[in-house]
Amino acid sequence: MSRSSPQRRVWRLRVGETPTSERDALAGEEPLEIRVGGRSLAVTMRTPGDDFELAAGFLVSEGVVSQRNELTTMKYCAGKGDDAVNSFNVLDLALAAGVAAPDDSVARAFFTTSSCGLCGKASIDAVRTRSRFEVRDDPLRVRPEVVVSLPSRLRGAQSIFDKTGGLHAAGLFDARGTMLVLREDVGRHNAVDKVLGWALLEGRLPLRETILMVSGRASFELVQKAVMAGVAMLCAVSAPSSLAADLAEESGVTLVGFVRDPTMVIYTHRQRIIDA
Amino acid sequence: MSRSSPQRRVWRLRVGETPTSERDALAGEEPLEIRVGGRSLAVTMRTPGDDFELAAGFLVSEGVVSQRNELTTMKYCAGKGDDAVNSFNVLDLALAAGVAAPDDSVARAFFTTSSCGLCGKASIDAVRTRSRFEVRDDPLRVRPEVVVSLPSRLRGAQSIFDKTGGLHAAGLFDARGTMLVLREDVGRHNAVDKVLGWALLEGRLPLRETILMVSGRASFELVQKAVMAGVAMLCAVSAPSSLAADLAEESGVTLVGFVRDPTMVIYTHRQRIIDA
Repeated sequence: MSRSSPQRRVWRLRVGETPTSERDALAGEEPLEIRVGGRSLAVTMRTPGDDFELAAGFLVSEGVVSQRNELTTMKYCAGKGDDAVNSFNVLDLALAAGVAAPDDSVARAFFTTSSCGLCGKASIDAVRTRSRFEVRDDPLRVRPEVVVSLPSRLRGAQSIFDKTGGLHAAGLFDARGTMLVLREDVGRHNAVDKVLGWALLEGRLPLRETILMVSGRASFELVQKAVMAGVAMLCAVSAPSSLAADLAEESGVTLVGFVRDPTMVIYTHRQRIIDA
Repeated sequence: MSRSSPQRRVWRLRVGETPTSERDALAGEEPLEIRVGGRSLAVTMRTPGDDFELAAGFLVSEGVVSQRNELTTMKYCAGKGDDAVNSFNVLDLALAAGVAAPDDSVARAFFTTSSCGLCGKASIDAVRTRSRFEVRDDPLRVRPEVVVSLPSRLRGAQSIFDKTGGLHAAGLFDARGTMLVLREDVGRHNAVDKVLGWALLEGRLPLRETILMVSGRASFELVQKAVMAGVAMLCAVSAPSSLAADLAEESGVTLVGFVRDPTMVIYTHRQRIIDA
């Protein structure tokens, strides 16, 4: 099984029909820690493959190197901790003599794990430990017709998209498909953070019996945000990543992707889609 | 002019026809610095608007707060430095007594400026200062027919997308539309970093007379990467942000968006699209 496109069992559902179970390939997503001279510089969620290029390109983007000979060695190394194993998710790069090491402002730590070989499992455990809310027992139940109606409800309320032709959106809905709030942003994570911030300021956390609908894809980070706010269902217009599905499975979140009326693909906890 | 959708002059071009100049609204993008108790926690590129919600939601996502009363005050404040002005891009939040301050692992610093009121202009200056390459005089010239052919060339080479139905791609092309390299990733910035890393490792930096084509939108960060690698033209299937266009203008990068055969929208430095 390829780490760039791991397979898992999904349920394909067309409104009015019985869902069919099948195996499907998901976009692979795993954390990569980039170290320079043994010092941790950044952790990024990435699709495994071309990791040396990714790390080298990250240093180009950050202005650390601009010529081949400024990088001497690049190697995968074992993670931290006593039982450290080589997960092929930790890279150590060495700079040539005379090349200034990156300063502390060069940091892209979406998510930091304290002591592990940096596998997806460790990332999932860390999220579950940090969340103060439990969504596993959330009694939310949604009809398939409501789920497939969400993208057009979301799109219909996007005022900035109408003007600019391009912006991410996140909307929060109740089980009947009534929109509670919609927020837009150039960044997918920002649009979701604006929704969660609205909920916090309104005194609505945890967000029981709600659905978070996003305009793009569903990454690990977006599922993480749902879990942190107690949202039991995350729906995306496009594809979820492998680690998004893994985290949703472990956390009790119903994850639905490719929501395109009249069809959808259910990745986890399908009991919340009634008739499914 | 709204900061969430600022306007600028663009050229709409249909292959075989004379380009038309018009004013168009772009998705607003500006940096927001989130501080907690006066201490800088994160800088994120966001669409201005709902900033209090964004900052509050960021703290929810990071597990710092989960109830309304854990946040006491939120206010815009002036930036750092002697001539600090209130750019409405710096927010300071205060936590209630007993709420643990976020630790250093909570950092989302895509881009850090050392001393400014955190306006887009400062971010642009910082990128221009850091890049070792100049693209302003790059002699690249591309025919419109080549530009509109790039999305299908990119999509046609996406092997992981074919399996999973959803992955970002970045491809590097020469002036005739020949693909030099293609990389895929769940993260847009990662796909571009993989391309830049390939170029570094191949000893090809600066990437003179090349076109970088991306599958999604063009953000400030992607233009920044093009500048850092000496790429003179960035093309995107979808919309660019306002700060992406500003940085491209200042840096000499030709920025093209909404590339959908047989049309495109040119935002900056259109002299490189010949016949345009």
